[in-house]
Amino acid sequence: MAGSIYGTLFQISTWGESHGSSIGVTIDGCPAGLPLTETDIQIFLNKRKPGQSKFTTKRNEADEARILSGVFEGQTTGTPISILIENQDQKSKDYGNIMNCYRPGHADYTFDAKYGIRDYRGGGRSSGRETIGRVAAGAIASKLLAKLNVHITAYAKSIGPVTVPEAEYDYACINQNSLYMPNNRYAKLASQYLEQCIAAQDSSGGIIECVVTGMPAGIGETVFEKLDANLAKAIMSIGSVKGVEIGDGFQAAKALGSANNDLFYKAEDRIAKKTNHSGGILGGMSDGSPIILRAAVKPTPSIAQPQKTINKFGESISLSIHGRHDPVIVPRAVVVVESMTALTLIDMLMINMSSKLDRLINFYK
Amino acid sequence: MAGSIYGTLFQISTWGESHGSSIGVTIDGCPAGLPLTETDIQIFLNKRKPGQSKFTTKRNEADEARILSGVFEGQTTGTPISILIENQDQKSKDYGNIMNCYRPGHADYTFDAKYGIRDYRGGGRSSGRETIGRVAAGAIASKLLAKLNVHITAYAKSIGPVTVPEAEYDYACINQNSLYMPNNRYAKLASQYLEQCIAAQDSSGGIIECVVTGMPAGIGETVFEKLDANLAKAIMSIGSVKGVEIGDGFQAAKALGSANNDLFYKAEDRIAKKTNHSGGILGGMSDGSPIILRAAVKPTPSIAQPQKTINKFGESISLSIHGRHDPVIVPRAVVVVESMTALTLIDMLMINMSSKLDRLINFYK
Amino acid sequence: MAGSIYGTLFQISTWGESHGSSIGVTIDGCPAGLPLTETDIQIFLNKRKPGQSKFTTKRNEADEARILSGVFEGQTTGTPISILIENQDQKSKDYGNIMNCYRPGHADYTFDAKYGIRDYRGGGRSSGRETIGRVAAGAIASKLLAKLNVHITAYAKSIGPVTVPEAEYDYACINQNSLYMPNNRYAKLASQYLEQCIAAQDSSGGIIECVVTGMPAGIGETVFEKLDANLAKAIMSIGSVKGVEIGDGFQAAKALGSANNDLFYKAEDRIAKKTNHSGGILGGMSDGSPIILRAAVKPTPSIAQPQKTINKFGESISLSIHGRHDPVIVPRAVVVVESMTALTLIDMLMINMSSKLDRLINFYK
Amino acid sequence: MAGSIYGTLFQISTWGESHGSSIGVTIDGCPAGLPLTETDIQIFLNKRKPGQSKFTTKRNEADEARILSGVFEGQTTGTPISILIENQDQKSKDYGNIMNCYRPGHADYTFDAKYGIRDYRGGGRSSGRETIGRVAAGAIASKLLAKLNVHITAYAKSIGPVTVPEAEYDYACINQNSLYMPNNRYAKLASQYLEQCIAAQDSSGGIIECVVTGMPAGIGETVFEKLDANLAKAIMSIGSVKGVEIGDGFQAAKALGSANNDLFYKAEDRIAKKTNHSGGILGGMSDGSPIILRAAVKPTPSIAQPQKTINKFGESISLSIHGRHDPVIVPRAVVVVESMTALTLIDMLMINMSSKLDRLINFYK
Repeated sequence: MAGSIYGTLFQISTWGESHGSSIGVTIDGCPAGLPLTETDIQIFLNKRKPGQSKFTTKRNEADEARILSGVFEGQTTGTPISILIENQDQKSKDYGNIMNCYRPGHADYTFDAKYGIRDYRGGGRSSGRETIGRVAAGAIASKLLAKLNVHITAYAKSIGPVTVPEAEYDYACINQNSLYMPNNRYAKLASQYLEQCIAAQDSSGGIIECVVTGMPAGIGETVFEKLDANLAKAIMSIGSVKGVEIGDGFQAAKALGSANNDLFYKAEDRIAKKTNHSGGILGGMSDGSPIILRAAVKPTPSIAQPQKTINKFGESISLSIHGRHDPVIVPRAVVVVESMTALTLIDMLMINMSSKLDRLINFYK
Repeated sequence: MAGSIYGTLFQISTWGESHGSSIGVTIDGCPAGLPLTETDIQIFLNKRKPGQSKFTTKRNEADEARILSGVFEGQTTGTPISILIENQDQKSKDYGNIMNCYRPGHADYTFDAKYGIRDYRGGGRSSGRETIGRVAAGAIASKLLAKLNVHITAYAKSIGPVTVPEAEYDYACINQNSLYMPNNRYAKLASQYLEQCIAAQDSSGGIIECVVTGMPAGIGETVFEKLDANLAKAIMSIGSVKGVEIGDGFQAAKALGSANNDLFYKAEDRIAKKTNHSGGILGGMSDGSPIILRAAVKPTPSIAQPQKTINKFGESISLSIHGRHDPVIVPRAVVVVESMTALTLIDMLMINMSSKLDRLINFYK
Repeated sequence: MAGSIYGTLFQISTWGESHGSSIGVTIDGCPAGLPLTETDIQIFLNKRKPGQSKFTTKRNEADEARILSGVFEGQTTGTPISILIENQDQKSKDYGNIMNCYRPGHADYTFDAKYGIRDYRGGGRSSGRETIGRVAAGAIASKLLAKLNVHITAYAKSIGPVTVPEAEYDYACINQNSLYMPNNRYAKLASQYLEQCIAAQDSSGGIIECVVTGMPAGIGETVFEKLDANLAKAIMSIGSVKGVEIGDGFQAAKALGSANNDLFYKAEDRIAKKTNHSGGILGGMSDGSPIILRAAVKPTPSIAQPQKTINKFGESISLSIHGRHDPVIVPRAVVVVESMTALTLIDMLMINMSSKLDRLINFYK
Repeated sequence: MAGSIYGTLFQISTWGESHGSSIGVTIDGCPAGLPLTETDIQIFLNKRKPGQSKFTTKRNEADEARILSGVFEGQTTGTPISILIENQDQKSKDYGNIMNCYRPGHADYTFDAKYGIRDYRGGGRSSGRETIGRVAAGAIASKLLAKLNVHITAYAKSIGPVTVPEAEYDYACINQNSLYMPNNRYAKLASQYLEQCIAAQDSSGGIIECVVTGMPAGIGETVFEKLDANLAKAIMSIGSVKGVEIGDGFQAAKALGSANNDLFYKAEDRIAKKTNHSGGILGGMSDGSPIILRAAVKPTPSIAQPQKTINKFGESISLSIHGRHDPVIVPRAVVVVESMTALTLIDMLMINMSSKLDRLINFYK
């Protein structure tokens, strides 16, 4: 339980630091019989790859995934799938000026407090590169979900003060702008805002939204292993996420019951809700409506303007962080949110299989 | 993994339905040597007991805890502590009108979708009474934390539109008003608002805030088992919670990095931060500042005004829910938030003990 | 992970000491829709109940199970099933002479070493009464397995030097003699041996064998979660068990490969083996043949003849243990072996459900 | 829970097939501050490396370990340690004759039954090469244990009918003969026996014994997570192991209580036992005496003499397995038993740290 393993039946184990030779993930519990190639994984990895726009780090990484095990003749075999990605651009720069610093907003101090030692090169294990393992595994989880007709769409809803109103969503735009916003006009506004941030040697936060369609009703376990509880953990485990909400989320706190309740009705062959304030989850289980969640992402802590902080010896210092840093974390975290959602959903779909005796009997007939 | 067990080293297992004979929890992993009496648990249970104000259900329950195991001569022995609370006021009313209904905002439909069967009496396992086990266990976790000088304070920050501004907090008030708000004047305003809700046969949501002091730095595991990730799961697992945030939370999404970063400085014999936008957690580990979290609670779904919904046969019905229901969940959920926080913190403090080799060697010397 | 919780999807949580007010278990993860009554559980509990023959303790316990939750209108609901059994005959004798003793073969010293405190009355949590929770839960697991046509038979193969040869097994006898041996003549010999033990103020060990029929092939997870690995843990976790073997077990260590290999052949519509040296498990997965396991049970450590030992103050003492002790543990442990086997099998059957993609797709179609 | 992850606090995740490009393990939960080099791991891997004697496969593998993460400036950092070993001698032979066969004593059939697909090249995931990950991780666990003065010695007690009597043990011999027997004369006898096996196109089983010194008393959790229960699982999870015993094991089943009980006495500053029939474990916790366990290993299933079996189409075939196979598994499994023991002990030592309140308080003072 040192924290780099996730899941109950569909489990992943990630490893690797920013400036090590490589980084990777092992997936244990992927069902046998899934066609899988390195391209499937590459598509996901490319979404979080650096160097794709002026708002992402100039670090030059191909981020090419190699599958080392668990796939035979193009199909998963049920055994662990090990995926390795080499770090290519570990700039061997001089870390003399930050190796002992406690950068504001970073995990330098807490790592030292916990372990007494820390790989300070590029943030070590707390670097954004840690998410590569999540995304590689998320690609597989997403492919499995697609086989069950479950689909996930994630995007940047807000960048700093620029928020795309729900009425102006156009999912077709998401991959048309480098910020992954569901509206190109707002993406342009957000870009202008980010350029101001860069000019001011500052950074911006934002909100990622994620929508899941096709989830059957009744997925999630009651009490502690609720679907929303597990999603909250999954999303909050992403570095820089400071808040998670489902459906109306914090707005529900101000609402009246009569407005927040979703009325049930019969729609053709299924049970549906007239509204979806619940965000697709009731009592910790999926209710058949789209699942909607949002993550609040804090501004990139690495900023170029000088900050007063201390080093590990307790001495006051002034720190200016130059180098390869995104002015906003949100765009590259979109696929991470998508991946963590996928990993959580496939796991809970598997766990749910033994909830009813008649289905268990049927399965083994 | 059916969901009624929580924790890794400090584990709890809860059971019981609203209208069963009793309800309870077993705690496995409590260290030996803690003085423990039923009074310790009763103090916590009393905070969530019904019938304490006009805003809580009239259900008449003593909620008396009995310790059945794990305590010998007044001390915990390290073996499982089983606690049982009898349900006394399971009104044997006629459930004919709701047994087949899918109440809006409730888990009736999702329970049926998952299990195909449901104890419809008083909500069964999805009743608010499910939290009794959490609170009884939380009392023990809190007592352990106090021995480590870790203290938790939770309160209602908002009821509907009434929010207590941080500048007007007075923790001494929390137990002086039946809404557990940290300001009696705002509590009075909130009471008036709730009376309007009742008059309108409606209900209100709100926000619970929780502050933890005394946590040593470095607690929490990196990557998936971050302290904030586990707190998010713990809090989101409470029925009716739709959002969780740490520190500035969703506000951080709109902030600039220069404003959101907390500057480190040396304070006497420890490292401190000039501000606490992080809410006491950096990189998934406690940073030594107070931990601050907030939970968004939706309005009570049971409202007296008629709602259009369907029954399990897909037939449209109009439903008015009368009976013993709080117009707001927040006040009675305050101690549940406190309990889930305590359960999570003690578990992560235990897990952390093997993080450094020198301390491991020292322990077994 | 303090050790009183067992299972991954079908989980049980046991509690209670020998001389507490009661003892019990909570089952979390039982599929919904299983008809269940207290009688189902009682049948199992009665097999381990004291006072049934001259070779079992005179302690007078009805061991009546009460189901407190999780069953509604005669069926399991998928929510936790809490079962409580009251201790009735906790003789309030004077423990002055043993409260500080370290009885040979008992856990007194190790409990003190671990916890520094110990409920010395009747062995506390390390009493044989601890197994009541296992057996109550095992009754439910066995009923589920029967629905899948999986059946478990356990019996005493050996008592001290008296061993029933496989050629003379008659399962019909198992419930005809108080030692649960599969041959009444050998049971008589064993009884005579036990009477000699009693006369000599001594005790006997023995071997329990357990046979499972009907398991589909392919159950068990590869590498660490092999079916045999989990069975070994389950059986070795029973107090007094010092060895576990599958199929030919320790005999296989002396065999030639040509003799130990089981040849496959086609039998009607299934694949079968001409012999079953493997004991029904190959590569950690069930192979379709009957699963066969054996547990070595040490002699009852409580004996009436004086033993030299020490007390917790390190002082030498002579100890004669009188009172209510079985001269052999085996007969009453037979149903415990059966229960632990059932709990392990149902859990692994559930876990196996997501092993193949086509079956996963089919399940959610 | 697909089975390639082991441990609670000290967790390992293994991956890789016999004929993939590489094989490996990730260790999550290793305390920070352990000096670690690839040589530490190589020493362990070399013990199970093929090609070291006439009794081991001629497969030519360097089995060189590369550490990819988790170590910085020669020390562990607390983050996951990923270790990769390349497969070099994956003979690209024609598998046409065995790809569809169900080899007797192998997992071919059970893999197909579970997954419907199988990497048949060299046994895939059920190859002995799967143990490389266990051994690489075991090297780290052993190094940690040495820091706590816990030492493990494993050796071949028996090869077929040749058993070294305890009175003739000489641990100095273990590394002097290629069979890892604690007596060179018996090793010679065993070698002669193995040559007969080879001549007869047959194979042999054997028994591995493992002794642990230095374990403090009180380690292991009560009830289900007993130390012996976890060791039994760990050892039984090794391919080809069919039995596990602790202390007197199956001999205890025939013993009298008066002979099997170990009498306590005061030895200088500690509590000791006059004998060690218990094998160092009482009530599931270490008792301060050496821990003694034995594993029964079945004969190598791959034998050259023709065997009648079937293929996956149910057709009868005669199969002669030529190629690179050891006539006995025992010698190369010795270090695997040592490794699984080490992994289990370090995990339970870590878990034990929160058993007493006063030590918990002290830790965080």
